Amino acid sequence: MCPDAVSVPSHERIHSSFSRQAAMALIRAELTDVQPGTVTITLPCWDGIRQQHGYVHGGVVAMIADSAAGYAAMTLAPPNTSVLTVEYKINLVAPALGKKLIAEGSVLRSGKTLSLTQARVFAVTDDEKKLCAVLQQTIMICADRPER
Amino acid sequence: MCPDAVSVPSHERIHSSFSRQAAMALIRAELTDVQPGTVTITLPCWDGIRQQHGYVHGGVVAMIADSAAGYAAMTLAPPNTSVLTVEYKINLVAPALGKKLIAEGSVLRSGKTLSLTQARVFAVTDDEKKLCAVLQQTIMICADRPER
Amino acid sequence: MCPDAVSVPSHERIHSSFSRQAAMALIRAELTDVQPGTVTITLPCWDGIRQQHGYVHGGVVAMIADSAAGYAAMTLAPPNTSVLTVEYKINLVAPALGKKLIAEGSVLRSGKTLSLTQARVFAVTDDEKKLCAVLQQTIMICADRPER
Amino acid sequence: MCPDAVSVPSHERIHSSFSRQAAMALIRAELTDVQPGTVTITLPCWDGIRQQHGYVHGGVVAMIADSAAGYAAMTLAPPNTSVLTVEYKINLVAPALGKKLIAEGSVLRSGKTLSLTQARVFAVTDDEKKLCAVLQQTIMICADRPER
Repeated sequence: MCPDAVSVPSHERIHSSFSRQAAMALIRAELTDVQPGTVTITLPCWDGIRQQHGYVHGGVVAMIADSAAGYAAMTLAPPNTSVLTVEYKINLVAPALGKKLIAEGSVLRSGKTLSLTQARVFAVTDDEKKLCAVLQQTIMICADRPER
Repeated sequence: MCPDAVSVPSHERIHSSFSRQAAMALIRAELTDVQPGTVTITLPCWDGIRQQHGYVHGGVVAMIADSAAGYAAMTLAPPNTSVLTVEYKINLVAPALGKKLIAEGSVLRSGKTLSLTQARVFAVTDDEKKLCAVLQQTIMICADRPER
Repeated sequence: MCPDAVSVPSHERIHSSFSRQAAMALIRAELTDVQPGTVTITLPCWDGIRQQHGYVHGGVVAMIADSAAGYAAMTLAPPNTSVLTVEYKINLVAPALGKKLIAEGSVLRSGKTLSLTQARVFAVTDDEKKLCAVLQQTIMICADRPER
Repeated sequence: MCPDAVSVPSHERIHSSFSRQAAMALIRAELTDVQPGTVTITLPCWDGIRQQHGYVHGGVVAMIADSAAGYAAMTLAPPNTSVLTVEYKINLVAPALGKKLIAEGSVLRSGKTLSLTQARVFAVTDDEKKLCAVLQQTIMICADRPER
């Protein structure tokens, strides 16, 4: 047990962890909401993250979906733990085109060792919020792996 | 049909498509081998693509795995087509740490509308080539969707 | 187009298709609800479908999840089409123990060629309805493949 | 630790476990080969396991793929452990038609807590052995969960 860690609210730990993810900064993703069991990440659509058809690259869509779902698991995990993605599956159902993407992660089942999470990614324009990807993910809760 | 396209060798089309993927340049991925049915992408491990534990971000690992497998499908697709990722599943089995990552994509079954592909990602140091991720992917072959 | 087929209500087509699935009868699964976009399959827990720990076999859980999700897609597909499972991913999150299992399939995105569906499977006892499996599935809509 | 268990060869434990799976008997699956890291299950194609198109039901294909891959993990797990399927993803790439199906499971990475496995299912006729399904699976190694 780590009594000090217990006193750190979950959303502070998550904002701190997110800020240490260079890859999230590289793609310009922002952590826009953290609630118990749900996390939202927002990504402006800019030229540096596109693929050959002009959409946001599926791997970038997956990055924010993976992170939103993983951090959702972290909101329900004990304070002295960290989370690792074991695996995920993602369906890309519509082109990721718009002003921004919003990834909404949530926990389907929170376990001691493994948690099951999901994420929905929406492509947002001025008029519309359209589903563009759906992720289902297995997260491992690691008791003694401190983040660097 | 597009007779001109037929005359473009598959590996040229793939190098050209890869070079138009801004997201691949952003993470500094390189297309290092293209053969019928297999494609290799190499990624130097640099600070901008890490996550909070110091490993290469799982989403970045997925980007090169997704691309290597998708381009492998493209090597076997008719010249006047393009490929789109329908979905994939990826297991991250070991930390993506090393000097570089190598993603090897290959085709398990090439279909007219859908192809099934896989990728293996290895973390490479001076001494070792260690499996760090395994992807299984469904690709749609699009007859009339020109790349921009 | 197939004008005769159009006149057959979706729930009749689905009940008729389900009744032709020998494998569903073998495991004693029942089609208990069909609505536009959602389908429910119920399975009594009996000895013939257990695995080595005494739970209902994961493959049997997957069979009802796969079918519930696939038939959900069929409720929204044009009448002269049939549906085929391209692929699915399933997480088995709790032992499938109880009096019966209930698989609830629903459509996340209905497309012309491909649809994305999900299913939740619950283990039901006298007192409890507990989530035991979650499936995410890709369905192909086949225009000209008659069911036998 | 369970010293007695250590003395039971892996293939005996697996044959014994398989024989306790009522669901495998129900569909008439047979355990036809057990080697360190690989397991083969064979299934005759009979009327009781078909779906509405006349193929072997995808859920039945998944059952033998899931079992072959899970038992492959068990061949490399310590003797006093059991294995549980955390999740899998399966692509059904061709109709499961023929005289029999053969599921070949193998281990991609054997871990202390989690193992990554795969399976290939082939539909076999007199002349041909055709790939019909590909599975990628996460297995949990359970130290203290005795099989009943």
